[in-house]
Amino acid sequence: MQHEEYDILITGGLLLTMSGDTEMVKDPVIGIRSGRIESIKKSHAHPPHLFRAKELIDASGCLIMPGLVNTHTHLPMVCFRGMADDLPLMEWLQNHIWPAETRHVSREMVYAGSMLAMAEMILSGTTTFCDAYFYESSVARATLASGMRGIVCQGFIDLPEENTPSRIIEIAERFIDRWRDKSPLLIPALACHAPYTCTEGTLVCIKSVARKAGVPYNIHVSETKEEVEIIRSRHGKSPLRYLRDIDVLDGHTIAVHCNWLEDDEIDILRTYGVKVSHNPESSLKLAAGIAPVPKLLRNAVVVGLGTDGTASNNDLDLFGEMDTAAKIHKMAQMDPTVMDAKTVVKMATIEGARVLGLDEQIGSIEVGKWADIIILDMMKPHWIPLFNPYSQLVYAASGADVTTSIIGGRVVMRNRELLSIDLPAVAREVKTIADAIAESIVSQPS
Amino acid sequence: MQHEEYDILITGGLLLTMSGDTEMVKDPVIGIRSGRIESIKKSHAHPPHLFRAKELIDASGCLIMPGLVNTHTHLPMVCFRGMADDLPLMEWLQNHIWPAETRHVSREMVYAGSMLAMAEMILSGTTTFCDAYFYESSVARATLASGMRGIVCQGFIDLPEENTPSRIIEIAERFIDRWRDKSPLLIPALACHAPYTCTEGTLVCIKSVARKAGVPYNIHVSETKEEVEIIRSRHGKSPLRYLRDIDVLDGHTIAVHCNWLEDDEIDILRTYGVKVSHNPESSLKLAAGIAPVPKLLRNAVVVGLGTDGTASNNDLDLFGEMDTAAKIHKMAQMDPTVMDAKTVVKMATIEGARVLGLDEQIGSIEVGKWADIIILDMMKPHWIPLFNPYSQLVYAASGADVTTSIIGGRVVMRNRELLSIDLPAVAREVKTIADAIAESIVSQPS
Repeated sequence: MQHEEYDILITGGLLLTMSGDTEMVKDPVIGIRSGRIESIKKSHAHPPHLFRAKELIDASGCLIMPGLVNTHTHLPMVCFRGMADDLPLMEWLQNHIWPAETRHVSREMVYAGSMLAMAEMILSGTTTFCDAYFYESSVARATLASGMRGIVCQGFIDLPEENTPSRIIEIAERFIDRWRDKSPLLIPALACHAPYTCTEGTLVCIKSVARKAGVPYNIHVSETKEEVEIIRSRHGKSPLRYLRDIDVLDGHTIAVHCNWLEDDEIDILRTYGVKVSHNPESSLKLAAGIAPVPKLLRNAVVVGLGTDGTASNNDLDLFGEMDTAAKIHKMAQMDPTVMDAKTVVKMATIEGARVLGLDEQIGSIEVGKWADIIILDMMKPHWIPLFNPYSQLVYAASGADVTTSIIGGRVVMRNRELLSIDLPAVAREVKTIADAIAESIVSQPS
Repeated sequence: MQHEEYDILITGGLLLTMSGDTEMVKDPVIGIRSGRIESIKKSHAHPPHLFRAKELIDASGCLIMPGLVNTHTHLPMVCFRGMADDLPLMEWLQNHIWPAETRHVSREMVYAGSMLAMAEMILSGTTTFCDAYFYESSVARATLASGMRGIVCQGFIDLPEENTPSRIIEIAERFIDRWRDKSPLLIPALACHAPYTCTEGTLVCIKSVARKAGVPYNIHVSETKEEVEIIRSRHGKSPLRYLRDIDVLDGHTIAVHCNWLEDDEIDILRTYGVKVSHNPESSLKLAAGIAPVPKLLRNAVVVGLGTDGTASNNDLDLFGEMDTAAKIHKMAQMDPTVMDAKTVVKMATIEGARVLGLDEQIGSIEVGKWADIIILDMMKPHWIPLFNPYSQLVYAASGADVTTSIIGGRVVMRNRELLSIDLPAVAREVKTIADAIAESIVSQPS
C-alpha cells in the first residue's frame, strides 16, 4: 500500500478554510510538507492510516483555521503597557509616551519587548504581523528567533528634527538590503509615521525606496480630527488628497486608522488600491474616532484588523479586536446587521493578508499556501453550543482558546506551550526594563 | 507557640481589596474560616508558618481580588448562543429568539443551560450573578449545585396574554417562599420584563410582593429608543417617570440597560436610589444604545456591570465587558479620561454588589465579608509589565487568566479545574438540546 508522507498531519475537528471554494470541512486530514499545505482531504474518504507523518496532530473537538493576521503593531511598546492610561491624547503622547521613548527605547528594549509581544501574539492565535517602530532591525531579529511571520517596517519621523533625504534613503535602503531574503518568514518594509509628523521630502523619499524594493509602505492617516485639521491648514486639502498629490499612494500603501474620511477620500483609497488597517480598540481607548469600515467595504476597499501598540489597547489579542470591530460599527450605524461575524473573521485572516500583499501566500487554508494554521479548543463552555463558528470566533472566543499554532510548517506552540520562545527569560528582561521606566516616572518632575 | 487555624489560607501575590481602607497588599496572608474572610495580614509581619489551615493556596505571582459580580444575566439562553446574530433587533426577537423560547424552554433546558453558564462564569472569574428568566426554580437548583452565589429572579411578562393579579402574586410569593433561606448563597427575587411588555397591574403587583419580601425587583428600562416611544405614546411620559408614578421605584429596584435617559430621569434614579445594570456589549451588538454611565456616576447613581444573555453578547466573560465599558464611553464622549480603569473594576466588583444590595456581604476583600475571591495568573505575557493592576484587569486581562475561584469559602475552581460542575456531562446535555433547536430551525417555514 502506498502511503502519502508529510511533515505534519492534522486530523479531525472542523476546518474553517476562509477560502471561497470550500468553506468548511468536517473531519479533515491536512497534510503539511516543506512548510506548505500539500493536501486537504476528508477523513471518511481518506482515512488517516493511509498517511505517514513525522508529527501527528489530533484536532478532534477543535476548530482548525488560518492563523490571524495583525496588520498594525508597535511591538516593543509592550514595555509601556499600562504605564499611562485614561489620559487626554496629547498629554498621553507628549508627557508620557514620547518622554518614555526618548529615555528608554534602545536596541535591547526593542528586542526584549518584541520577544514578549511575539509570545503574547502566538498565545492568542496571531501568526503574522506588520510592525513599525524604531530600531526595527531588533524586531527583525526577534521575528527570526520566534518563528513568526512578520513584515518589519523601519519607521521614519521628522521629530525632534528633520531628516535629510540622502540620509534617510541610505538608512531605508540599508535596512531593506540587510533583511531581504533572510527567511521566507521575514519581509523588511518601510513606514512613515504620519503626514503631520513627516515632511513631504521624507514621505516621498521613503515611498521611492519602498517602490523600488517592491515592499509595503505604512503610514498613519487621519487617526484624529486634530491631525486632519493640521494637514488642511498646512496644505489646504484633506490628508489623502495631499498624499495622492505627492504620489505616495498605490496598492502597496497601507493607510492605518483612517478614522476621519470624507467620501472623496474613500474614492481615492479605492482608485489607488490603498489598503486600510483598522484598529478599533486603540481608537476607542484614545477617543480618536471610528473608521467608516462598513462604507469602505461597500466601496471595495481592502480592510484588515490591527491592534496598534499595547500602550493604547492594551493587548495584542485579535479575538478582542474582532469582537470590538463587530460591535462598534453596529452602534455607530445604529444597525445590527453591519459587520456580520463572517466579514470580521475575514478581516482578521484573508483580508488582513491582502492588506499586507500576502494573500497568495497566507490568510486561508488552501493547498499551496504556507501552513500558517491555528487550532482552537471547542470543548470550553463558551463554545457550546456551536450553531455558527464565525459567531463563536467573533462574539465568544478568546485568544486563550488557541492551543496549537503552526507558522510556515513549524509548530511554535503545542497545547499552549511556547516552543520557540523562552517566556520566563523574556519576562525577566522586560521586567528589568519596566523597573527602570517606573523609576524614571517616579523621579520625573511633575 | 499559638497557631491561628483556618479552613483556607491564601499566601503571596498581590491583593487588590477593592475596599476604601487598604487598596493593595503585597504578599498578604488571608485566612478564611466558616466561609468568611477572618484575617488579612502581611506575610513579612505574620509569616505563614504561624498559621494552620486545611487548605493552603500559594498565590505567588498571582493577583488576588474579589470575585466579579454580573448584575444581569439570562443564563439558560446559552442554549441559543450564536443561533441568530447580526440581525435587526425586532427580527432577531420575533423571528428567532421568541419562537425558539416558545418551542424549547423547559425546566430541563433551563437547568442544563444554567449549569453550562455557571461553568463559563466560574471559569471567567464571576462569583455572583443576578439572573432573570422563565422556570427560575431550575436556575435556583443549578445555583445550589454549582456553588455560585446567585440572585435568581422569577420573571414575569404579559405576553402572549395578560396575567391576572391574583395568579401572579401567588406564583411570586410561592417562588420566594420556596427558595428563601435555603442557602446563604441563594437569594430568590422577582423581575418584570419591561414597562412595554408588562401591564401596570403586573408591574405593581410584583413590586408589592418584592417589597413585602425585601428582595430585589429587576426590570429592563429604556433599552431601545423604540420602546421609549411606545411608553411615551401609551402613557404620555418617559419610562422612568411612568415607573415612578406607579410607585415601583426604590433602592431595591434594579433598572437594566437605561440606554436612553433624559436628565430628569437621572434625577429620578438618584432620588429614589434606583440601581442601574449596565450591559454595554449586548447593547452594542443589538445597536440598542449606549447608557450615559459617566453622567450617572457623576450624579451618584450606583451602576454595576452585566453581560445580559448570551444570545446578545455572546459570552458571560465580565473581563470583556470591563474592556468594552471602559472604551465605549471614551468614544461616546470623545474624552479618553472618562471611565478610567479603576472605576470600571469597581463597577465589576463592589459597585455591582451594591446594585444587588450585597455590598455589606461581598464585592471587596475585607474581614467579615464572605470569602468570594478569585486568583489570576500574572505570569502570562499580557500581564507584563505591571504598572497598574486596574489597567491590566480592564485593558489586557481575560477571563482565562483566572486560575482559582472561591465562593463563600468553598473552592469551586482550582488551577482552572471546575470542582463543582461536571462539565463534560453538562456540555452533552446542552448539545442535545441544541441539536433539537437546530432541527427546528431547519424545519421552520421561512
